[in-house]
Amino acid sequence: MTSAASPDALLAAATAGDRRALARIVSLVEEGSAAGDELLATLHPTTGGAWTTGLTGAPGAGKSTLTSGLVTAVRAAGTEVAVVAVDPSSPFSGGAVLGDRIRMQQHAADHGVYIRSMASRGHLGGLAAATPRVVAVLDGVGFPEILVETVGVGQDEVDVATNADTTVVVVTPGWGDGVQVAKAGLLEIGDVFVVNKADRPAVGETVGDLERMLEMGGDLPWRPPVLAVVATTGEGVEAVWEAVQLHRRYLTTSGLLASRRTARILAAFEAAVRAGLRERTRRVMQDGDGEGVAAAVAAGTVDPWTAARRVLQRADG
Amino acid sequence: MTSAASPDALLAAATAGDRRALARIVSLVEEGSAAGDELLATLHPTTGGAWTTGLTGAPGAGKSTLTSGLVTAVRAAGTEVAVVAVDPSSPFSGGAVLGDRIRMQQHAADHGVYIRSMASRGHLGGLAAATPRVVAVLDGVGFPEILVETVGVGQDEVDVATNADTTVVVVTPGWGDGVQVAKAGLLEIGDVFVVNKADRPAVGETVGDLERMLEMGGDLPWRPPVLAVVATTGEGVEAVWEAVQLHRRYLTTSGLLASRRTARILAAFEAAVRAGLRERTRRVMQDGDGEGVAAAVAAGTVDPWTAARRVLQRADG
Repeated sequence: MTSAASPDALLAAATAGDRRALARIVSLVEEGSAAGDELLATLHPTTGGAWTTGLTGAPGAGKSTLTSGLVTAVRAAGTEVAVVAVDPSSPFSGGAVLGDRIRMQQHAADHGVYIRSMASRGHLGGLAAATPRVVAVLDGVGFPEILVETVGVGQDEVDVATNADTTVVVVTPGWGDGVQVAKAGLLEIGDVFVVNKADRPAVGETVGDLERMLEMGGDLPWRPPVLAVVATTGEGVEAVWEAVQLHRRYLTTSGLLASRRTARILAAFEAAVRAGLRERTRRVMQDGDGEGVAAAVAAGTVDPWTAARRVLQRADG
Repeated sequence: MTSAASPDALLAAATAGDRRALARIVSLVEEGSAAGDELLATLHPTTGGAWTTGLTGAPGAGKSTLTSGLVTAVRAAGTEVAVVAVDPSSPFSGGAVLGDRIRMQQHAADHGVYIRSMASRGHLGGLAAATPRVVAVLDGVGFPEILVETVGVGQDEVDVATNADTTVVVVTPGWGDGVQVAKAGLLEIGDVFVVNKADRPAVGETVGDLERMLEMGGDLPWRPPVLAVVATTGEGVEAVWEAVQLHRRYLTTSGLLASRRTARILAAFEAAVRAGLRERTRRVMQDGDGEGVAAAVAAGTVDPWTAARRVLQRADG
């Protein structure tokens, strides 16, 4: 597979299991190139078959180790799985201690597992924009299971929610007493809660805190389970995967899956419009004109609002 | 003064002290109308004479009472002053308890005080965009002192910083132990810190916390003072106004004022470009076209990224 291969040939190869072709498509899509956009449009009709599970939580909560355990659970059933790591500190992104990296590498030789780190794409805003595009590619080429690991800071926990069918929130007894989870906005977005490192003290307290706060949410049709896990030994990981399957059945049989996916795709649409406008502003401002206008504003020869109107009019020209 | 008066007649009247003419100009500018934009451009050469003091802090910190006290201090010197209230819960905006409202009304009969509430303009994002325009008008018609009161939530504390020559951060012993102030990003933007309601317990602790955290910032040329105040009795309010005057002298004699004002006017310029692009998108999305595209995205007949490109292309048309 050469980099000069036609888009159709690339897609056919990737769908047939050629991992180098897949990596090439993902790169084109990640970059936001015109070729990538065309590939996304071509793949669109074949998307919708994958189940996307998002894992979010603070750095150090053990998301990667749990993700690795879930990969093992999926593979035990013979199912192919793709992992997208958006957390720059994830071992999947190469940014972790040796022991963790070795644990992840057990999957590297398994052709049924495709791992893509997005950490190299820089700032989290850019990652958040690129992630749903990459997930759409993996869905389109036929992965039945996709795991997306994101670091839960700032807006990202919200992004993972709009990107995933099932969202797993991972906390530790040390980090995540319930109040912290609530403050971070994670209480509303979790479909399954995992208290990891359950071999540490205070695990029962954290589980109890979370359950009480979820109770305050009232009588919901889906009551998110709170599961104690020791991801490093694999204890409880099976139960997490079973909870994801339960949630999947709930969304599918209740008919909520369709509306959830519609909301998700509309969010991606609006994010793409915003990103396009930002890019356009940057382009206009980088023009000689934009800089000249800014200099005039700085010099005080024109008011900022007249100046802005001029720049916007030039952007139309 | 009728609403059909020419722009030049309006400006002449407002500059001569006609408050109804001024209110009319402020409304036109606030609305973002073409007439308002022209008035702003005409006023621009006469701006730069006002000193703008921003007051920010959480709701209930006592910003309005302190603002009222500062108005009294300014008026004692015979100087005219304009107050812009961006906080919807401010007594200046009519959204407060009776006692507070009465306190503010002592200024209502004073022709040397102009009070403008912007709360009726709705959401804070819109207020943040309109505030620097209104401040420019008040500056342009000749107010030597402008006080801007904003509620310190979300991005607003940053906005008040880019809008003010001197920024006063108001906290209470209850709300604002230093850590909260740091979390809210207020530590970096304050030129003067006020611990209000200093008749309550723990005031010394809060003052100490703030001073320690400001020390951590290292040896800065301007070290923000931390002042204990009881705004309701007026205790310490004089000292706050003196601190503002000290900061004013520091900025003026150090030559930092020019670069600070340039940064502020460039920020207003960039914000206006962004606002223009947002408005353009909103317009396109509201068109039958934009809605149709969104419906196609929801129906799954087009992928969100192709759809976004279509909307952006139509925005150019």
